[in-house]
Amino acid sequence: MSAMELGKRFRCERLKDRIMPAETAALLVEDGDTVAVSGFTPSGCPKAVPLALAQQVRSGQRKLRLGLLSGASTGEEIDSAWAELGMIARRLPYMTSKALRSAVNGGGVEPVAYTDCHLGMVAQNARYGFYGKIQVAIIEAAAITEDGNLIPTTAVGCSQTWIDLADKVIVELNLRQPAELEGFHDIYRVQDPPLRQPIPLTSAAQRIGEPWLRCPVEKIAAVVISDLPEKPRPLAPEDEVSKRIAGNIVAFLKNEKAAGRLSADVCPLQSGVGSVANAVLLGLKDSDFEHLCFFSEVMQDGILDLIDAGKADMASATSLSLSEAGMARMLGKLEDYRGKILLRDSEISNSAEVIRRLGVIAMNTAVEADIYGNVNSSQMNGTSVYNGIGGSGDYARNSAVSIFMTNSVAKNGKISSIVPMVTHVDHCEHDVDVIVTEQGYADLRGLSPKERAVRIIENCAHPDYRPQLRAYFEAACAATNGAQTPHLLDRCFCFHEQMKKTGSMRIDNEE
Amino acid sequence: MSAMELGKRFRCERLKDRIMPAETAALLVEDGDTVAVSGFTPSGCPKAVPLALAQQVRSGQRKLRLGLLSGASTGEEIDSAWAELGMIARRLPYMTSKALRSAVNGGGVEPVAYTDCHLGMVAQNARYGFYGKIQVAIIEAAAITEDGNLIPTTAVGCSQTWIDLADKVIVELNLRQPAELEGFHDIYRVQDPPLRQPIPLTSAAQRIGEPWLRCPVEKIAAVVISDLPEKPRPLAPEDEVSKRIAGNIVAFLKNEKAAGRLSADVCPLQSGVGSVANAVLLGLKDSDFEHLCFFSEVMQDGILDLIDAGKADMASATSLSLSEAGMARMLGKLEDYRGKILLRDSEISNSAEVIRRLGVIAMNTAVEADIYGNVNSSQMNGTSVYNGIGGSGDYARNSAVSIFMTNSVAKNGKISSIVPMVTHVDHCEHDVDVIVTEQGYADLRGLSPKERAVRIIENCAHPDYRPQLRAYFEAACAATNGAQTPHLLDRCFCFHEQMKKTGSMRIDNEE
Repeated sequence: MSAMELGKRFRCERLKDRIMPAETAALLVEDGDTVAVSGFTPSGCPKAVPLALAQQVRSGQRKLRLGLLSGASTGEEIDSAWAELGMIARRLPYMTSKALRSAVNGGGVEPVAYTDCHLGMVAQNARYGFYGKIQVAIIEAAAITEDGNLIPTTAVGCSQTWIDLADKVIVELNLRQPAELEGFHDIYRVQDPPLRQPIPLTSAAQRIGEPWLRCPVEKIAAVVISDLPEKPRPLAPEDEVSKRIAGNIVAFLKNEKAAGRLSADVCPLQSGVGSVANAVLLGLKDSDFEHLCFFSEVMQDGILDLIDAGKADMASATSLSLSEAGMARMLGKLEDYRGKILLRDSEISNSAEVIRRLGVIAMNTAVEADIYGNVNSSQMNGTSVYNGIGGSGDYARNSAVSIFMTNSVAKNGKISSIVPMVTHVDHCEHDVDVIVTEQGYADLRGLSPKERAVRIIENCAHPDYRPQLRAYFEAACAATNGAQTPHLLDRCFCFHEQMKKTGSMRIDNEE
Repeated sequence: MSAMELGKRFRCERLKDRIMPAETAALLVEDGDTVAVSGFTPSGCPKAVPLALAQQVRSGQRKLRLGLLSGASTGEEIDSAWAELGMIARRLPYMTSKALRSAVNGGGVEPVAYTDCHLGMVAQNARYGFYGKIQVAIIEAAAITEDGNLIPTTAVGCSQTWIDLADKVIVELNLRQPAELEGFHDIYRVQDPPLRQPIPLTSAAQRIGEPWLRCPVEKIAAVVISDLPEKPRPLAPEDEVSKRIAGNIVAFLKNEKAAGRLSADVCPLQSGVGSVANAVLLGLKDSDFEHLCFFSEVMQDGILDLIDAGKADMASATSLSLSEAGMARMLGKLEDYRGKILLRDSEISNSAEVIRRLGVIAMNTAVEADIYGNVNSSQMNGTSVYNGIGGSGDYARNSAVSIFMTNSVAKNGKISSIVPMVTHVDHCEHDVDVIVTEQGYADLRGLSPKERAVRIIENCAHPDYRPQLRAYFEAACAATNGAQTPHLLDRCFCFHEQMKKTGSMRIDNEE
């Protein structure tokens, strides 16, 4: 890194005296502080200062119990490193770290009070004062402008709100992140009531903000020059089941277009991460949809494929959740993607207002769905949280069409993803339009719960579980005299109880 | 009614030849049709044509099985009359009729496929084609303009969308509704993606639309002159428990203001119907809040009191849900309320975009809430729907602060409204900020589920049920090793099972 190259990135003379090593900057964080970090998923998170904090605790130099706020999950350098050391007292809004998950569910060295949140509401709730004071914001930047404003890196998340609320800001100027990311961001500051105005976004491609995070120079307490690589999540492998789910989703989308309803080449798509989401993108590549457009919170490799193939015009997200190969590919020809990829605040990518206005077609993953169309996205046996609800509620509730997808079975067929009653509801029956498994899809729009049950059991459940599900439904209908949503409260979790007893939800010799 | 008075109301010459008796207009509705009606709650619904249809079926002249769409519930002339005769094959989005409720839950002469919906999404979903074709719209009007446009009466609901989608429109020009209602409505047509624009509303008092429903003259197949009175719902009586709940809500609101968070005199309030809602309004009248403002779906008597007392500046709603006395009082001095009361499309009153922008403080009623903050608004024992979710989800999800209120016990203490797990989730833990009972309030913002449990049990549950709830929570924590949301799936409905067995949720000699 030449001095000239650093000068191009670090353009604010007034901040030159605030350069310090990560270890020194880390001392600005005090025990009991609430720390807010840039990024959304592992992308765009600070790395050097969080690792220095962890090292100070690991070495016994300091004791720290912190509140930790971020846009979504963070990189291993924060959630995992801190959770392993018992440094996290309070955490929101989302996680993917195994160590943190274990701590949140009671298996850590110290308890973690975890608040699972709609990602689109985190920044607003913080500004409204629901999460208390924020002492320190740690923001990763690709560059610092002449005025001290910050160019984000591979994600935006809630960074602008963290800067606005924090007493002091630590900037990690990460020289490993390409300087060419400048111009890929569109930062829009949402005002609060009673002054809030309409968010002027009317198409996924529109710019409504500025390319930087506004940050008063006097708030910046430290600038740490770092050179740490991001550790992207590996791309989920393609498998046969995912391909079949994707095929069913594409079939549904084609049918919508044929029926003259909202079409995937008119309305933007929301697409998450994981093998099914990626398989859907591949399926769309081979479909005859043209001019696709994405309005999502994360962007994974398949969207690059669609843009490269000329099938997609653009993608708006708050985070690049690319694989290592995908990130290298994108960064290798960043100029080709300029104007085709826009990274926004998660308050915009996950905005109820914008999602509903654009008519987004939402595709989210269910952990389990019940026969009446309620979806659990987050909790195993209603008890142990896996990752969290994430942005799925922002999209499912406000989309034009809300699709949930899941394998019909898990653990070699021992678990049915379609159950009589879900053990935790993240998305109520009113927020679920279509359920898709590798078996088929159930279009639930305009149906009563009892009509939905038939469609979900016959179209989505694995054939091995259909007899058990039919038996429950028929018994519940009989016992409740055909009420609106027939349930037997002493048997509604019979699948889960069976699993607990025998290691499988399957009842042999049923029917 | 003089000819001159009729002429003032019926100003469209081209429609004069389409006047006909209700019985003749009713013949325009055919068996199997989907009929969409004006109104929201009993207010603003057509009366003469629905009654004529019922009479034709009752007398054996015709057989009719219909789909029925409306803004919310309807008057007795539709939901009750039609349900009693088995005329409703399919119904959405909401109900309050006892006869319809019975039919929906399997106790009618014919089954009813009932789809419970977020009221703010009904019009959009209909336009998107999710509910199929609409053959006939029946719209109550206070006047017909020169161009054939319609002045609504005491509610707006989804009337504009029904007119836009229906093959033909029957207008009930109801001379019993005051002509002076003209000017109280603000009708805004929401376009659909990809053309949808920001809804320009930035304050509850702002006008963004027109005072009439646009209706092409050629679409109007019949004009029925009617003179039938509306049957408003009686005002729920004040009781001591409601007053105590209201007192706790006002205490919470005062505390928010004192803490410098969003204040009830800056943010509009959403307030529903019922004794508690009315008690809250009375409580606000005696508070030191000034310049209150309401952004709600319904408006009940207490808001008139607040306006009269100079405590509230204005109220925006989609429906006047006033008592007979309240309606008479308002209609008696309509000019005093001009500009202070605005009736909007339910797509606006219940708009996610607008509710979030304005920072509405939402107050909704729970049937039951669980110790982790999930709320059931609609289903008894997870099985029998009472009214439906209504607009509670539109407000709870998008409000600045989402308050749910309920008596801590029902049926003389035999039912606890706070339970280990709700039997149906309308509002997930992520959508519930505060739970209020007559015992106190639990502020859940930023808390983990286990922290919420302690607060809900200790602040909101009835003291008689606290030992049982604590016992469940402690057992669940122990058995799950302190997981995120400790539950015992074989015991989580123990309160409901106990009720079924003994007629009370109470376990005597507990602790």
